[in-house]
Amino acid sequence: MRRTLAFDADDTLWHNEGHYADTQEAFRALLRPYHDDAWIDSRLHDTEMRNLQHYGYGIKGFTLSMIETALELTEDRLDGAGIRRVVELGKAMLELPVEPLPGVAEVLRDLAGSFELMVITKGDLFDQEAKLVKSGLGSHFSKIEIVSEKDQATYAAILERHGIPTASFTMVGNSVKSDILPVLALGARAVHIPYHLTWAHEVVASPVESPFPVLESIRELPALLATW
Amino acid sequence: MRRTLAFDADDTLWHNEGHYADTQEAFRALLRPYHDDAWIDSRLHDTEMRNLQHYGYGIKGFTLSMIETALELTEDRLDGAGIRRVVELGKAMLELPVEPLPGVAEVLRDLAGSFELMVITKGDLFDQEAKLVKSGLGSHFSKIEIVSEKDQATYAAILERHGIPTASFTMVGNSVKSDILPVLALGARAVHIPYHLTWAHEVVASPVESPFPVLESIRELPALLATW
Repeated sequence: MRRTLAFDADDTLWHNEGHYADTQEAFRALLRPYHDDAWIDSRLHDTEMRNLQHYGYGIKGFTLSMIETALELTEDRLDGAGIRRVVELGKAMLELPVEPLPGVAEVLRDLAGSFELMVITKGDLFDQEAKLVKSGLGSHFSKIEIVSEKDQATYAAILERHGIPTASFTMVGNSVKSDILPVLALGARAVHIPYHLTWAHEVVASPVESPFPVLESIRELPALLATW
Repeated sequence: MRRTLAFDADDTLWHNEGHYADTQEAFRALLRPYHDDAWIDSRLHDTEMRNLQHYGYGIKGFTLSMIETALELTEDRLDGAGIRRVVELGKAMLELPVEPLPGVAEVLRDLAGSFELMVITKGDLFDQEAKLVKSGLGSHFSKIEIVSEKDQATYAAILERHGIPTASFTMVGNSVKSDILPVLALGARAVHIPYHLTWAHEVVASPVESPFPVLESIRELPALLATW
């Protein structure tokens, strides 16, 4: 029985959260004449959370939330050029090159011989497909699942659809909330590789002693898997 | 061998294009002080086509294209309240109830005994999943594929992934370009059920004598399938 190794994409295979952080800094700069940074951040976060039910995850929804926040925070005084700037910030994010994290390409190449490799990523379908192409990593994966939410039910449905036994499935990702806890709850294995930035929405309290392996880099993954 | 019957979703299972038409009319009303309707429509269409490579299909991308067009057509003079109105038009589309077309629920119920039923729809993942839930039709389908483009390669990949032989696959949809021609090119069958509105991007020249069945309503589908 060949084991399946599934990877999260954003901030596990390639840099992502840093792009949001850079864009949010440009957004703050635009609104700094009106408000201080902490208030801008807090209102943007509130708008994003409120809009998640309408927009789901991804850059297009983030752009619309920035526009809405900008209008709220300026009481509609932000002018057309300002709004245009926000639209362009969003478009620039979509056009960014996709930069694999250090070691990712080599490790995937190594593991492809012994494991069935898969991507399970949450977000905007169109955007995630484009990133996979731009990353140059697509050919390593035999299965790609782009989903709107990563909870226990989602993972259970994916394993069932592909006929993957729980005992032979391992998930690797940077989000304890989305990549680790729901997979452990199913009875499968999960490996946490933290990224240096975590979106506030994904933050959960960490147990003092971790019940799952935590690696500093994907480069440590083959050695860990060899011990199983 | 059980045959697979796959349905497009927007304007095949439920009303959709009418919502875009209604929204576009509200958008025109907002910009009528600046330009005539034909010019507004033409510039919005150009913006949508230009942005397709960035945004893909769906309401969020449409909303961003409306905002961009509104700024262009007013040389950035549209005020904050106007932009807010456009954001709200987009959000209202996302909140609309999903209204199945006449006969859809009954026909799916009838056919579920004899066919494996599937949805193959193009667009925004989050939005299409939400529509399937809101439609109440989800339980009729054993497979759901939400894709970013519907061309021959997409259909070939879907059939391969699910192990469906070409000869046992039939696609039903309202778009000759997306639902019919690429499926016929693969050697599978397709049934065209036109909707009374077609998005300009999906319009292709129709052959004088149709090489595929064209039905007026999904209600005629079981009788057609019974003759095969």
